[in-house]
Amino acid sequence: MSAYTQLSSRFERIGKIDHALSILDWDEATMMPEGAVKSRAQVTAELQLMKHEIANAPQTIENLKSALESEDQLNDWERANLHLIHKSVQKARALPARLIEAMTVATSRAQMAWRTHRAENNFREMAPLLTEIFRLKREEAKILSDLLQRSPYEALMDSYESDLRKSDVDPLFDDLKSFLPSFLEKALKVQSAEKVSRPTGPFPTVKQREVADQLINALGFDRRHGRLDVSHHPFCGGTPRDVRITTRYDESDFFRAMMGVLHETGHAKYEQGLPDDWVFQPVGRSLGMMIHESQSLLSEMQICRGRSFLEFSLPLFKKAFASPSDTSNTWSLENFFRLSTFVARGYIRVDADEVTYPLHVLLRYEIEKNLIDGQMEVKDVPEAWDQSMKDLLNLDTRGNYKNGCLQDVHWQAGLVGYFPCYTLGALVAAQLYQQMEKDIANLKNDLSQGSFSQVNAWLNKNIYQKASLYSARDLIQEASGAPLSTKAFKAHLENRYIARSR
Amino acid sequence: MSAYTQLSSRFERIGKIDHALSILDWDEATMMPEGAVKSRAQVTAELQLMKHEIANAPQTIENLKSALESEDQLNDWERANLHLIHKSVQKARALPARLIEAMTVATSRAQMAWRTHRAENNFREMAPLLTEIFRLKREEAKILSDLLQRSPYEALMDSYESDLRKSDVDPLFDDLKSFLPSFLEKALKVQSAEKVSRPTGPFPTVKQREVADQLINALGFDRRHGRLDVSHHPFCGGTPRDVRITTRYDESDFFRAMMGVLHETGHAKYEQGLPDDWVFQPVGRSLGMMIHESQSLLSEMQICRGRSFLEFSLPLFKKAFASPSDTSNTWSLENFFRLSTFVARGYIRVDADEVTYPLHVLLRYEIEKNLIDGQMEVKDVPEAWDQSMKDLLNLDTRGNYKNGCLQDVHWQAGLVGYFPCYTLGALVAAQLYQQMEKDIANLKNDLSQGSFSQVNAWLNKNIYQKASLYSARDLIQEASGAPLSTKAFKAHLENRYIARSR
Repeated sequence: MSAYTQLSSRFERIGKIDHALSILDWDEATMMPEGAVKSRAQVTAELQLMKHEIANAPQTIENLKSALESEDQLNDWERANLHLIHKSVQKARALPARLIEAMTVATSRAQMAWRTHRAENNFREMAPLLTEIFRLKREEAKILSDLLQRSPYEALMDSYESDLRKSDVDPLFDDLKSFLPSFLEKALKVQSAEKVSRPTGPFPTVKQREVADQLINALGFDRRHGRLDVSHHPFCGGTPRDVRITTRYDESDFFRAMMGVLHETGHAKYEQGLPDDWVFQPVGRSLGMMIHESQSLLSEMQICRGRSFLEFSLPLFKKAFASPSDTSNTWSLENFFRLSTFVARGYIRVDADEVTYPLHVLLRYEIEKNLIDGQMEVKDVPEAWDQSMKDLLNLDTRGNYKNGCLQDVHWQAGLVGYFPCYTLGALVAAQLYQQMEKDIANLKNDLSQGSFSQVNAWLNKNIYQKASLYSARDLIQEASGAPLSTKAFKAHLENRYIARSR
Repeated sequence: MSAYTQLSSRFERIGKIDHALSILDWDEATMMPEGAVKSRAQVTAELQLMKHEIANAPQTIENLKSALESEDQLNDWERANLHLIHKSVQKARALPARLIEAMTVATSRAQMAWRTHRAENNFREMAPLLTEIFRLKREEAKILSDLLQRSPYEALMDSYESDLRKSDVDPLFDDLKSFLPSFLEKALKVQSAEKVSRPTGPFPTVKQREVADQLINALGFDRRHGRLDVSHHPFCGGTPRDVRITTRYDESDFFRAMMGVLHETGHAKYEQGLPDDWVFQPVGRSLGMMIHESQSLLSEMQICRGRSFLEFSLPLFKKAFASPSDTSNTWSLENFFRLSTFVARGYIRVDADEVTYPLHVLLRYEIEKNLIDGQMEVKDVPEAWDQSMKDLLNLDTRGNYKNGCLQDVHWQAGLVGYFPCYTLGALVAAQLYQQMEKDIANLKNDLSQGSFSQVNAWLNKNIYQKASLYSARDLIQEASGAPLSTKAFKAHLENRYIARSR
């Protein structure tokens, strides 16, 4: 057996442990009784430790060294796989066990405390716990910065989307920062001239579930390799051959659950479309969070909230939820388009529309960058938050920590460098959709009939089947013929919110 | 770290992998989409292999040797744990990898083929596959027989209930064999003088689920550490701190699902009652299948099908399923007692009542013993089956393989030596219940009120908290004050089916 073969069989074992962990995670969020928390945590910690031991075994390191020496004998997929393995081994070896343990303790403590402190709007008591997390994150960033030869914040971003640089992000975000606030004013002005009417429930959960099933079937969610369940926080989990998406239903608002399901279906189709041959190897996995989020936003924002798809979905909504005698304007396509594209300044990122969402991300990006670079301390976060919310969204958040800097779990969970992926994903989604419009004849007609065969073939070829063979940078260039820019996203916003044409 | 500590930490890892596997098994039976079969099988095979590697690592063997040399320094639990580890390591080392692989292939092939051949009543095509399995089982039995110093069939039984001997089983089974056929005649005669009326449905699944929840709550199923779901074949799975029981609902017959749930709840309470401190160690597990089955049969047969508990459950059934205007005799306690204790000669073991069930087991015990000892070949099974069914149940099964020797999956799955545990469990259940009647004041009154606190305290002390500290033999002696015999079981049958008193 060649060194590469031995190495990849070790990482196949890691891949299989990850599959088990993914199903256990899903189970924990959807099925597990509360009394099992402790024993389950012991089980998953052991599986994590086993992965760590395999990746750090002397034999692994030896195989890796030999495999790198003869990498010219490998094909493209194998070589890409080898480099992914190399990077993950390097990172794992660079970070001391002490630091990882301290991070586990600090994040678990902070997440627990966050539930209370957020509910009680108590920043003062949350601050020391966050300070400890950022202290550890700075240490981690420093180590990874030395290893990867990039700035500390870039070294953290690398965990969520490989090789993402400030030089990629900053020009795009600067552009959005100058474009969006005034665009938002314009969009709100257009919107203020329109009437919009919300359908009133109750909309029974069982009916919502039926419509959700019809929608995800149309999109091409593969039920032989996935299922839809309920959880408190919607997510897409499981494994490529067994994708588990979840949602939650609100009987007073069916539209939200439907859009949530269509969002998660975008994630799910990416996983389901990954190539069979590499299903347990690093190169066979989906790329980072930017590309993953591009797939959910392509599904929800670019496609399903648009006019064409609404022509398909609205009749399903009407049949399930409208009273036959209701001939009001509420159930018109125009009204649903307005509902589907309603813009509002709000405090909460996860409730934001696609115009204001990037502003929430810009704010967090600036703050966490400064926290990592040492230009800001945790105690100064609320002031920076208030100032940015004022500048970007013209909202007064002073003293409102609950709906301000304590609203997200990310920092408490040690996820620093993750936020930019949401907005980069939105840019990628717009750029991919624009290319699809060029490549797919009658795209709008397909969408209006709920026909996704051409869309899915395009995605399969350009995104899904590529797995982690290329960097995100190359993947975007290949798929859309251009490097990532804000152009397609801005054009999309103009079309949708000013011209109201899509 | 002492050798024992090192050894037990290795087996703690095995225990944790087993927890993960148990949840994955449950998921496979209840949740997993069909397209995930292949990738899931690869994942569970890898986890099994990892367990095998840990148990067979040179360091494990060394630790074991040292720990055995200084076992006088261990306390009772540790010593029992060490001996369980010792035995499992010895067994794993004795069986060649080639044999285990061949068994995996043969059983997986036979189980697949069985679905078709059983449906088509095709013994001729099933026979060669079964012959191969019994060839391998004989080889396994021979190896384990040399290792454990007992007969080949006893060596196989040992996998399901440790240290079970023919000298334990044969006198009990001989006694049942002479007692049951004539007892069955008598019981059928008593029954023929009674009228019994079956309630007619439909009984909506959602209502059945509600009543099932009420029942298992009364029995003390701990919802913080377990859940109830639906699967094609009811089972009790999961882990001690996260017990997953399943049932299936038939809208034309609620009683069957309720009894099934009460049966699985007996298994579940045993698991939930195992001591916290040893939850990942061999000594912390439940004893073998005889004791496990005693718990489900104690719950279903001894308690829940009896008159006292029916006083509690019947009002729940009536409220959920009876029309308020139905004042017929159908919903009387006497009629439900008759339904609950209805006896019938039948072909199918899993549908059998508690009087005829042991006869089905006696038949299989004789046949599989002869197959392992080489006194019978697979081709001769149908003739032996027909003869026994004639002798024991006075049924003609000639040519009816589907409802004869092809009805159970056990042999196709390589489970040889398992069947006796069902009937031994029934004997244990009767003996434990008889002791409970002595130890618990007002037991009948408790049961008629659905109050299980005394029952559960008794079981907790005498069974659950003992885990695998003692052998089944000692556990029974301790709990009931006598070695296992048929006395309590026969007395129970007389009381229930002749005197009709419980």
